[in-house]
Parts: sequence; structure tokens; C-alpha cells
Amino acid sequence: MTETATILNRADENLPKSLERLFDLVRIPSISTDPAFKAECRKAAEWLVAELSGLGFDASVRDTPGHPMVVAHHAAGRPDAPHVLFYGHYDVQPVDPLNLWNSAPFEPSIKELDRGRKVITGRGTSDDKGQLLTFVEACRAFKEVDGALPCAVTLLFEGEEESGSPSLKPFLEANAAELKADYALVCDTNMWDAETPAISAGLRGLVGEEITVKAADRDLHSGYFGGAAANPIHILTDIVSGLHDDTGRVTLDGFYEGVEETPSQIKAAWETLGMTTEKFLGEIGLFVPSGEKGRSVMELTWARPTAEVNGIWGGYTGEGFKTVIAAEASAKISFRLVGNQDPERVRAAFRSYVQSKIPTDCTVEFHPHGGSPAIHLPYDSPLLNTAKVALSEEWPKPAVLIGMGGSIPIVGDFQRMLGMESLLVGFGLSDDRIHSPNEKYELQSFHKGIRSWVRILTALAA
Amino acid sequence: MTETATILNRADENLPKSLERLFDLVRIPSISTDPAFKAECRKAAEWLVAELSGLGFDASVRDTPGHPMVVAHHAAGRPDAPHVLFYGHYDVQPVDPLNLWNSAPFEPSIKELDRGRKVITGRGTSDDKGQLLTFVEACRAFKEVDGALPCAVTLLFEGEEESGSPSLKPFLEANAAELKADYALVCDTNMWDAETPAISAGLRGLVGEEITVKAADRDLHSGYFGGAAANPIHILTDIVSGLHDDTGRVTLDGFYEGVEETPSQIKAAWETLGMTTEKFLGEIGLFVPSGEKGRSVMELTWARPTAEVNGIWGGYTGEGFKTVIAAEASAKISFRLVGNQDPERVRAAFRSYVQSKIPTDCTVEFHPHGGSPAIHLPYDSPLLNTAKVALSEEWPKPAVLIGMGGSIPIVGDFQRMLGMESLLVGFGLSDDRIHSPNEKYELQSFHKGIRSWVRILTALAA
Repeated sequence: MTETATILNRADENLPKSLERLFDLVRIPSISTDPAFKAECRKAAEWLVAELSGLGFDASVRDTPGHPMVVAHHAAGRPDAPHVLFYGHYDVQPVDPLNLWNSAPFEPSIKELDRGRKVITGRGTSDDKGQLLTFVEACRAFKEVDGALPCAVTLLFEGEEESGSPSLKPFLEANAAELKADYALVCDTNMWDAETPAISAGLRGLVGEEITVKAADRDLHSGYFGGAAANPIHILTDIVSGLHDDTGRVTLDGFYEGVEETPSQIKAAWETLGMTTEKFLGEIGLFVPSGEKGRSVMELTWARPTAEVNGIWGGYTGEGFKTVIAAEASAKISFRLVGNQDPERVRAAFRSYVQSKIPTDCTVEFHPHGGSPAIHLPYDSPLLNTAKVALSEEWPKPAVLIGMGGSIPIVGDFQRMLGMESLLVGFGLSDDRIHSPNEKYELQSFHKGIRSWVRILTALAA
Repeated sequence: MTETATILNRADENLPKSLERLFDLVRIPSISTDPAFKAECRKAAEWLVAELSGLGFDASVRDTPGHPMVVAHHAAGRPDAPHVLFYGHYDVQPVDPLNLWNSAPFEPSIKELDRGRKVITGRGTSDDKGQLLTFVEACRAFKEVDGALPCAVTLLFEGEEESGSPSLKPFLEANAAELKADYALVCDTNMWDAETPAISAGLRGLVGEEITVKAADRDLHSGYFGGAAANPIHILTDIVSGLHDDTGRVTLDGFYEGVEETPSQIKAAWETLGMTTEKFLGEIGLFVPSGEKGRSVMELTWARPTAEVNGIWGGYTGEGFKTVIAAEASAKISFRLVGNQDPERVRAAFRSYVQSKIPTDCTVEFHPHGGSPAIHLPYDSPLLNTAKVALSEEWPKPAVLIGMGGSIPIVGDFQRMLGMESLLVGFGLSDDRIHSPNEKYELQSFHKGIRSWVRILTALAA
């Protein structure tokens, strides 16, 4: 087998072309949450299939009731090599408010920041198109040098990650035999910092709910009816305001069932990472932690559950003023889960709480938006340790095992449905603005990300 | 002088043409709150000037920094006749949500309901184009029969009533001598019911405020930052939720200063009107009074102050779900005032309350939207009594003196700036949906409204 250095060199030489391919993919506005972009999602899937077929994968677009999946297979150079399933998603977040972008979200470019640092700008560069291509480009380097891959590889690229992955479970179920591998590699997470790679050993779960409170049968004049008629915005704000108590705890009945206190040795390990409230919040222009009192920002975002309103609207929101009492008001609310919190029990407790706040002459409608439990990977797994060593060879500082505030439901699905452990390695940075205007991906993340996968695949095959 | 019956007959004969003129005016989408309709507002003003000039008024469009005023003068047939200033507004409310209209808002039509009842549909038919034309058409009947008017008449039509009348005070100040009359007639109010005309002897004041709460310097991913970073929607909902206590009272410091309890004889008079909670709220599909506990709906809407959110927005409000923590969230909030509540003290108390709820690392921006105190007219005024007798001759039931929940700031301005008492007579009904989709005006309101002004002008001249 070829020296790893030769493969890495090839990855380096390929970089300009790798970037061109990333730009091509970013240019496709594959926003999965907005039906207006349905055709663009398919276009992104087809682009990936064309690329992978060119690399020698047996690749296909697979229809689902929603946006299609991309599945691709490639055998290993050696028959006894392990088989990995690599997961990523080609769909991206919406781009509003568009006026806050410094350049068009689907016209990627490379910008040079201070001290020679370069970033790739555009929606999806970090979440998750840039990340998934690090793996594809690593495969390319192997293929170009060896004509083979060190492991058998199945690729699964989803197009609904940003909209709650409604088609994923049915697809895994229907194609379990085809997709089962020795373990899954998931590239949708962050580094600890620009010099320190990270492996995520814990992920929060997520429950999404949209509610609409309805009062009068029409919008009312607030002069005629104000003071006597129910205002659904008041009801909704009472509901939201009552979700937390004065100490920042969520008030729902039984919400903390299944939430364990973080063991002190784990908290101690996190302390050594040197993250402070000042650093964490300072990056986004804040300095007062807002959640449960008396806990570090790492604990709050990795090991504690939350209730957050992600959107609220009702009444007149245009220019000027309209003295109206709205007929209805809505909010999108999500809960981040940890430990063994049960998504459906949390959803039920939320709905029951909301119902208790609705006056008898008003109504509420619920619309669920996905639900998945938290995930915990064993800190002492050999898979984690192999990857940790490989990553530490590539980056200036050794890799660290961390928790993660976000949710990647597929990791739980891989565990429950396919019996596969997942390795969560990603090269995003916390300032990548992945759900915000001006998303970017570090050029170094892309380049060293490709090299990292070369090292990890080599180590896994060894 | 001609018999009143002859003038009334002429008004009856004119009705089909009067309706055509109303339709023409309603077809002009003069939405004053939305800058996109600026030209349409001017068009409505010009339409009125053309009509009034045709009637022999000395009429002109008067520029202001906002939408123009229409001013028109006509002398009386007798030199000793009183001089009245008639006020109305040609601007209308926005029409969203457009999908809830049964027919296009600016394509007026006559619809026949059950038992031969006919209504005129369209935005502005009731508020206030139909109402202001009742007076113009009454003048037309006098002119066509007598060639003269029984009183000297000045007309003042405003184009910014629905957006807080920013240009009105400066205009009254600059043109005080020209506009001063013996008293003002204001036609922007309701009947008690379809058979009972009403004169409004009290009007609530209004304070409007828009606030924007700002937290992080950008939208955040709720996975990475949720639980640690301030969510401006939570701050905003806490602010709104804290505006009322459990008894429905507004919590602002000093809010009830200047609010007197309604004298028991006035409450007793209101009781005889037969309005019940069931009737008042039943009309809009509700049955639980939402404001201060233990008060009748009449007291709540005529004699008690309120705090209402008229609009709220923040975060992701589109299709699907976006796990974002917004950078900012906003609300439009209005206070209805009674008695001697001082608008600027209420505004200051509100701002101070809001500031007290803003975490030290967040900010809030305030944007004022108008402010005017409540108005109380003396129940024993000769003007009110003359109008009461005249109205009682026209309608099936005698006219009643009522309070009014809405605000007509100009009444206070007429009182303070021009020393004029105002007569508030209007022919709207509470189910006219004036700030909602499917606004309508009763055909009978338009027809008998014209006749009512014929009777009132005759009585005032006597």
C-alpha cells in the first residue's frame, strides 16, 4: 500500500480543483425547508451522483416522499478491510434576512482575512457541503494514487437534515441491509478551535413544535374591543414567558426526568479546555449567560436541556402602526434534550402546559416538527481513540473529546436501527455562522479536513 | 327656507348617484401607513377636491410633510347662521391578510344579506370614506334644492388618521384662523345598534410604541448557543407578559393616575342599553372577558385603560423549521387611555419598565407611534342635545349618549388648539370589521346618515 504521505500530497495538489467542485455545489440553492427550492434540492443530489460516479462509485439518486437521498458504494482495495458508512447532508438552511449578507449566499468566494487566514463564504460551505466534500475529496486522493480505497465505503447524503429528516427513518428501515456497515462516520460537527480537532461524544436531542393560538373569529379594532376581547399575542407571550422560572429552569411537568447531573470528572475535563463565559459569549457580542443559573457555558450547551422560541409572529408587523387585535398568533418552539429525556413525553408535557394556558373561548393548534433523543457515545470506544490519534497527527494540537449542543438525529437512528456506532468528526468552527447570514468555512478546515479523512481511513484500515 | 322634507326627498333621489361616488372613492387604495400607496393617498385627496369644487366649495389639496389635507369652504345662505367644521379622513387601513377577503378590498359592491339588509363592501366603506360622504351628500341635497347651505361649512379631510396623524397638529396650528368654527362635527364613530343612533361623549386616548429587543450580534444556531445565549424573543415575551397582573390590571408604575371610577349613575345609564358580555363578545366568537376582572364590557371598553400588543415578530417565521436564536425581536404595543392619563407619562413609564427587563448585555430601541389623551364631552351640552333630537327624528329608536373605546385624537386637538367643542356622530356598526378583512358599511347607514346630517344641519341653523 502507498505511503500516507503520497496520498496527502495528492490531496494537496488537488486542492484548487477540490475548491472548484465545492463552489459548484454551493451554487445550487438546495434549501430544504422551503418548497420553492424543491428542484434545486434534486439538482444538488444529481450533482453529487455525477461526481461520485466519475470517481468510480456505484451512485444513485433515491426518491423519497420528500427530497431525495444520494447513496453510493465503493469496495475496498483489500477484502478484509472494514466497511464504513459516511453520512452528510446536501441541503442548506434558508438565507433570510438576505439584506444582512455581505455577498450573495449562493455565489461562493474565497476571502482573505487578517494574518493570511482564508475563508470560503456562502450558504452551506460549512453546513454541510464543505464538510461532506472533505470526505469525497479524500476518497479521490486514494483513488487517483492507488486506484482503490483503504476501506469499503458507502456514502449516504441526505437532503432534509435542515427540515427534521422526515424521510430518513423510513429510508434506513427500507434499506437497512444495503446501508449497514461496521461503523458510521458523520461529518457535521465542529472543531474545538481552529487548531484543535474535536470528536463529539455527546449530542443533544431535539423536539420541535409550532403552535397557533386562535381567539376572535377575525382581526379586531383594538379601540372597540380592547380591554374585553382576548388578545392571542398576550396568551402566546404568557405561554412563552411561563416556560422558564426565575432560575432559568424549564417549568414543564417532568421535563427534567432522565436528565442526570454531569459527573464531576467530565466537568473537570471540560474545564481544562479553557472555555470561559467571556470567550464563548464574547464572540457573539454578549456577556451574561441566560440559561440555568450557576452552570458553565459548556455545561449549559452540552449537558443541559433547553426550551427556545425560534420564531414568533402575530398581528400587524408592517410599516407604521395598526391598532388591531389579531385573530391568531404563532410561535415555533424547540427543546434541546439531554440524557434520557423522551422526546414524545416532552412534547406531550408541552402541549398539556399550553392547553392549560388557553382561555375556554380560545383554541390552539399544534404542528410537530421532528423529535429525537440525545445521544451519548462511550468515551473509551476504540473507534474514538483511533480517530483521535489520526486527527492529532494532522492538526497543531491534539484532538479532544467534547459534548455538542446541536442535534444530529441520524446518529441515534444509526445506533438503534442499524446497530452502528458513529464517529462524529467535523471541521466547522463556532463562528461559521451556519444558520445565519454570512456563513463561511475556513479554507484550512476544508484542506486539513480532506487530509484528516485520509489519515482516519488509513488508520481504520490498519 | 325650504321644508326639510324636500331636502330629504332630494337626498333619497340622489342615493344611486351618491353610491356611485362612494364606489369611486373606495376604489382608490389610499392606505396611509404603507409608503407604497403614497400616490394613491394624493389621488383620493384630489378626487375629493374635484367633487367639492363641483358642489361650489372653495376646495384645495394642501400639502403636508406626509399625506395632504383637503380643506374646503362654503358660506351659509344666511349671514347669521352658525359655522361648522366637518372632519373626516380619506385614508384607510392596510388590507392584509388579503386571502381572508371574500371580494377584492378595493372593488366595492353591494351585497344583499338576509331579510333584505344590504351592505356596501370594501376597505374604507365604513372607516371613513362612507361616513365622510354622508355629510358631503347632505350638502349636495341642500345645494341642489336651495342653492345654499343652512350653515357655513368648512370641511377638513385628513389622509393620515390611520397612521397617527403626524401632520395634523402642525396643520391646525398653521391654519388656526382659517379652520376655527363654532363647533366641529366629526363622523368617524358608530351607532349603538342598527336602529339606535349614538353620540359619543367620551373617547379613549392612545399611545403607540414599537420596541425592538436586540441580543447577539447575529442570528445564532440554537444547538450551539441555546441555553447560554440570550434569546430576544424570550425577553420580549417576558416584557409583554409582565404588562398585566393576574387581575388584568396594567402593571406600569403610575399607569392608573388620572383614571377615575365611572360614576354609578353613568354606569346605570349604560346598563339600560342592554349590552351584555354574551352579546358583545358573541359577535366575534368569544365569551370570556379578558381585561380587568369584575367590570362590564362597556366599562372595559369605554372607561378603562388598556395595554395591547398589536403586532409581534422575531426569528424564523416561514415554512418549516429553523433552529435559530434570533438577533432581535419586535412588538408594536398600544395603550388606550381614559380620564386624565397623560400619554407622555404612560410612554415614559412603559419605556422605563421595558428598560428594567433588558439584560445588561442586550439593548432595546423605542419608536413612538403617536400619543393623545382621552376626551370627555359634557353630557349636558346644548350641541349634543340638538343633535340628539335631530337624530331621534330620523331613526327608529331615540339617540343615546355613549362612551367610545377608540381614539380620535383630533377631537382633543380641536378642543385645545381651536377652542371648539366636537359633536361625534357616526353611522358605523360594531360588526363593520373596520380594521379587518371584509370591511362593510350598511347601505342604511349611508342613506340615513345623509338624511341625518340634513336634519342636524337644519337644527343647528334654526
